[in-house]
Parts: sequence; C-alpha cells; structure tokens
Amino acid sequence: MMKDIENVMKQRGIEGIAVLGDTTLGNPDLIYVVGGNLARGGIYFKRVGSDPLLLTSTVDIHSALRLGRVRNVRTFTDYNYEKLIIDQGKTEAYPRLMVNVLRGLGVTGKVALAGRNDLAWGLHLADRLRALGVHITGEDSPTIVEAARETKSAEELDEIRRIGSRTANIINVVVNRLRDAKRRRGHLWIGRQRATVGLLKQIIALEFALERLTAPEGTIFATGTSSADPHNSGDPRADIREGKPIVFDIFPQSELGYWIDLTRSFILGRASAKARQLYDTVLSAQATALDLMKEGVLGEELMSRACDVIERNGFRTVRDIYQGKAKQIRSGLTHSLGHGVGLTIGERPYLSFQSKDPLKNGHVVTVEPGVYLPRYGGVRIEDSVRVTSGGYENLSAVRKEFELT
Amino acid sequence: MMKDIENVMKQRGIEGIAVLGDTTLGNPDLIYVVGGNLARGGIYFKRVGSDPLLLTSTVDIHSALRLGRVRNVRTFTDYNYEKLIIDQGKTEAYPRLMVNVLRGLGVTGKVALAGRNDLAWGLHLADRLRALGVHITGEDSPTIVEAARETKSAEELDEIRRIGSRTANIINVVVNRLRDAKRRRGHLWIGRQRATVGLLKQIIALEFALERLTAPEGTIFATGTSSADPHNSGDPRADIREGKPIVFDIFPQSELGYWIDLTRSFILGRASAKARQLYDTVLSAQATALDLMKEGVLGEELMSRACDVIERNGFRTVRDIYQGKAKQIRSGLTHSLGHGVGLTIGERPYLSFQSKDPLKNGHVVTVEPGVYLPRYGGVRIEDSVRVTSGGYENLSAVRKEFELT
Repeated sequence: MMKDIENVMKQRGIEGIAVLGDTTLGNPDLIYVVGGNLARGGIYFKRVGSDPLLLTSTVDIHSALRLGRVRNVRTFTDYNYEKLIIDQGKTEAYPRLMVNVLRGLGVTGKVALAGRNDLAWGLHLADRLRALGVHITGEDSPTIVEAARETKSAEELDEIRRIGSRTANIINVVVNRLRDAKRRRGHLWIGRQRATVGLLKQIIALEFALERLTAPEGTIFATGTSSADPHNSGDPRADIREGKPIVFDIFPQSELGYWIDLTRSFILGRASAKARQLYDTVLSAQATALDLMKEGVLGEELMSRACDVIERNGFRTVRDIYQGKAKQIRSGLTHSLGHGVGLTIGERPYLSFQSKDPLKNGHVVTVEPGVYLPRYGGVRIEDSVRVTSGGYENLSAVRKEFELT
Repeated sequence: MMKDIENVMKQRGIEGIAVLGDTTLGNPDLIYVVGGNLARGGIYFKRVGSDPLLLTSTVDIHSALRLGRVRNVRTFTDYNYEKLIIDQGKTEAYPRLMVNVLRGLGVTGKVALAGRNDLAWGLHLADRLRALGVHITGEDSPTIVEAARETKSAEELDEIRRIGSRTANIINVVVNRLRDAKRRRGHLWIGRQRATVGLLKQIIALEFALERLTAPEGTIFATGTSSADPHNSGDPRADIREGKPIVFDIFPQSELGYWIDLTRSFILGRASAKARQLYDTVLSAQATALDLMKEGVLGEELMSRACDVIERNGFRTVRDIYQGKAKQIRSGLTHSLGHGVGLTIGERPYLSFQSKDPLKNGHVVTVEPGVYLPRYGGVRIEDSVRVTSGGYENLSAVRKEFELT
C-alpha cells in the first residue's frame, strides 16, 4: 500500500526516490504513485518523512490535479526546464533538473530511481546523476514501489472486484453463445456463420466494449492441440468443434489500469474419459492449492502441493526441472501455479518453486494449474483471489463446468 | 529499420546489445526486435556482425518461433537458468545467465542494455554486470533501438495505413451519429438517450471492437471549456450541446502494437465568428506545416512556421517560453506541433523547438496544432503522416469539417 513506500524507504536507508517516465502507459509504478494516467508522464519525488512532489508537463498538470493523489503538483516549466534546455542542451537538462529538485528537497543520502523506462537511457541518466554527486542506488526485486504495490488497499480491491464482476459477464455471454450454437456434423454455427476462433474473438471484443474493459494483451481462445501451448492465443481461422478441448483465458484491464486473470476450459458435447481425467486432475490441483491458501503460506508450498496432485494423477510437472530430474518437460504442468495481479498482469507475489516469501493479507494472486498434452490439448483453470488471514476471497465468481452439452 | 541496429552499433563502437523485459507489453523496443508479443518477454542478444539470439521462457518459445523475426530462439532453461537459481539464488542468477550468454557470443567490448524495465532493478542489474566484468554502457536518446525504430519499414507503414483506414471508419461513424442526432433545445438525442460524452464513448468503444483496434490510453472527447485542456479526456456525464466546441482525439493501437493519432474538432450547428476564427487559424497552421514537410526539414522549423500563423492571428504560442518572454502561457498553442508514432504513441522525431535533427524519408509524425482559450474551449486538428523525399503522405484520410449542420 502507498504508506509502505515510506516504511520500505526507512528500512532500506534510502532517503529519496524519483519515480519517472515519459508516459504512465506501461509504467505501473508511475501510475501507482500519481494515482492514474498522465499521457506525458512526469517525475514523482519523495523524501523520507516528507510529502511527495510531482512534476508534469504543462499539458498534464490539470489531469494530475484531477487525479488528486499528489497534492503538490508543479510543471517542468515551474522548474525552468526550457531554460535548462537552452543553456545546457537537452541531454544535460534532465539530470540537472533532477539535481535541482533533489537539492530543493534537501536530499543528500541514497536515492532510488523507479518507473519503467528505457534501460539504456536510464543508465545514462543514472551515470550522469552519479557524476553530479547524487548517491543513486539500484535495487533488487522487490523494489520500493513493487513492495508497496504487492499489498492491495481497500480501494484497489474494490476496483479488482468490479473488474471481476464484469469479466464474469463476458465469460457467461461467451459460454452461453457456445452452448446455444447449432451443432452440425461436429461443427458449430452461430447465426449463419460457422463458429471460428476469429468469430468468437469478435464476440468477445464487443462484450469487452460493453463492459468498459480492454484487452491490451489479447485473449486466449485456443482449441484442439493449440490448447496444449499455454500462451497460444488461438488461430482465428480455426473452426470450433465438438469434442476438442478449449482453453479460454481472459485478462482484462480497466480504465484505472487494474487487471484480472481468469481461465475456463471446455469441451463442447461429451468429454472422453481422457479429457475428463485431465479436467478432474487440474480442478483437484486448484482446489488443493485454494484450500491451503491463507496469510503466511509460502508460494512454493502451494506450488508443491498442486504438483503433488498432478503427479499423483500420472502427469509430469516442472518440479522435475527443479529437482534436476529433467532438463525440460514437454507435457504436464509446464508453468508455475500463479502470480500476482494488480497494475500489471504478472507481478509479485509468485506461486512457484522460487517463492520463498510468505503470502500476506491483501495479496491478489492467480491460482492457475494446467495440464498440457502436446498431441492432444490442454486444460487450465484459473481464478484470481485475494489472500486473507484465514483463507481467500475469489474476486470473480464464474461457474466451473467442463462439458457444454 | 531493423538493419539500422547493426549500423548504429558499429557507429557507436558498441559490440553487444541486450534488449530485455519480463513482458513485451509496454516494452516497444522488445516488441520491435522479437517481432510481436511475448507474454513473459525475454532477452534479445546481438553481437555486432552476428545473428541475434532470443531467450524466452518455456511457455513463450512457440510464440517466439511463430513470430519468426529471430531465427535462433532458445529458452532460459536451455541455459540452465533454474540450476543457476538453485545454486546462486534468484538475485544472482539473472546477471550470471547474461554473463554466460555474452561470453558464449564472444562479446568482450561495450554492451548496451535496452528495453523498458524498472529502473531500480535495471540499475541493480547493470551494477552487478559491471562488477562481473561486463562493460555496460548507458546511452542518451536516441538509443540504438530508438534510432532504428524511428524510420519505418514498408511492412510497418502498411500496418499503420491499415490502422489509419480503420480509424477513419470509426471517426466517420461518430461524426454521422452526431450529425444525425435529434436536436432539441440545444441538446442532442441519440435514439431515446440524451447524448452525453459517456454515451459517445460507448459508441466509440463498440466501433473500436468492430475495427479490431484498442485504445489503451483512452479517447479524448472533450466538450465546451474542457476542450481547452489538451489532455482532458472529457467528462462522461457532460451533455453534448449545440454551439459548444468539441475536440475528438483518437489514438488506436493494433494487435501488432502500432498506433496512429488523429484529432478532429467540431461544432454542432453554426459556429460563431470567434469559433470560426479559432478553427481557421488552426487549419491554416496545419496546412503551413504540411506544405513545408519533407525529408531534410527540421522539426523546429515546422514548429516555428506553425507558431508564425497562430501568432499572426492574435494567439500566443510556447515560443514565448523559449524566447524568455513568458514563464508559462495559459492560452494559444500550449504544446508542440507533433511527435513520432509507431510502437508508441509519442516518440522521436518530435516537431518542437527542441528538434534539431532533420526529418527523414520513412519517419511517421503527427501534425497537430491547437489553439486553446481556457474560458471558452479549444480546437485541435491532427493527422499522422509519413515523411517522404518530396513531401508527405497522409496515413489516414478523414474529412476536415468544423460545423456539423
């Protein structure tokens, strides 16, 4: 939460932080500290123990004031940026501006730079600031802002719940369209059109618009063998057919920048015994992980218990790689169990064999086991949940049904 | 263009480049070098004179191969990343992996890091790589990949033209809806609903879905005095009324990650003499800049000529700030004339008083003068054009009409 920025800075002995970027798009740290979107970005300065200062371009100052998260908003022009450019050149103006602001704030100790930026340019800036006497320090993950973002506030949870509810609407529309589609010789027809992945994506896109959500990373609607490739988004020309596995993975983002991540897997018509076993295994792995979920549990532990279930049912898992039994695995659970969601679609905390930190009340994570058989297809079931002190809260209630008959 | 990466590396004496990120979302450099979207990102390595190598996570390898831009694709697992994590810890594994790959490629000279990443983490990585003996160097803008991205290839231009044509469809639908709306006592009605900015945005969102475009940064539909604030996206509850200025600025992105940027300004009904003068001034400023546009012209020159027109018509411009005549300006042309578009919605080259580099054949830039009067409203007209050797090509043909009668 926002107040953790102050705490983490103190813990780490960092006196100042500058979160920067030329846009808030794709810059979750900057969105977080300024409270929303600024087309031309800006620089958020904070000294330990003091209120933050936000510098924006002249065109964004009103937007920044409307967002209201930072009270002290000024423009680059207020700090004579144009004059610095004329006097020192564009390259030198930016670090000089930062030095002036940091001096004005009385920062003399360690300073962390944050925000997603071009690394080449960022290194150039950091080297220049160091040469000008600023004590710039790098940070391993979790960085200060990452650590703050990990635990969601009540307002953030409300926003993710709203997205969850709208996402449930989209999934329900799609499932109903599939269920109601006419079936003729194994093929599906929606109205007078043969149901292809492309047609379904068109339907999904319209529902996104109606629910005021966007899909900057697309939507996975993978059928048949392509469903065995976890990140195959589906071939638009592929026909949707009875008896073939379908993985429908949806990850919408709201206007405020928050995400949710949900997956449902289906078969149109009756599932074979093989398909049913895949589905039941994955469902059971998810239930096992969810049953254990609560504050204090390690992500590693949840991953491990989900792998137990999948292995017991005769499938491989990535544990083989971590235990040195295999260099890679081509079937079974080929990815980790989950990841945090918030202002990004993949962030801390992770539910994987690398996750040694205990989960906390207010973390939001996906729980998404899958089993993939390359020559057949795959099944993945995913919910986004809030970790609580005694368990979890599912942030989007969508029925889990496999056979659409 | 892609081949410029090799050229710029040679010119700058940089032997190796590593473009990295944990997602391609919001990471245009990484999208550019890998040729599209990879959910979990990766690291693109290139040594001068050699073919590139792309490392992805196991879940993305098939996506990376389908993109096909890099032929040599391997997984982190192929380079024993999991073993490195077990042996060295997660913090140390990433730089060690990079050192191993760079050594394998025989890179001993200067190495640039690229891609949008968390700066705090990026600095930590760079410092660690330096400690391990890698000669990491920062780069001022334009960085190597930025320089390459500035000039668009034939394929990129085709994609932007496709987006331009779809965007024209959206604008035409919206304009026709506005023109055809019933007017009653100054208010507009679409069907049985009073036309608000929110309703128009809903219509726009559906058209985006039909045209398979997204609006990750939203859409500006600002009416009345809010149109005087260039980045005010419009109050959803505001009624759309006759006689009030409207600024409609649309910046869609395609699935492949490319953007276009267009603005039209309207008045419903007859414009007052004042509104007409605003519009004619802006239109004339744009025509003047477009007439001068061709390879070799400086962005600064176009900005300056557009300001001439606006000042001659009695409005202020940001030139007053650059000439030290004012610390800020609150009306007139308060922003620069334009910016590049491509895999981002705001990139080099810029058409501003700071732009000292000549435009080149294949640059794609917006030309978007505006005049804003805080207590009245604003007018902005914007096209995205390709610079050619003898002039320019408009990448989206949309009629310019002010009065919708």
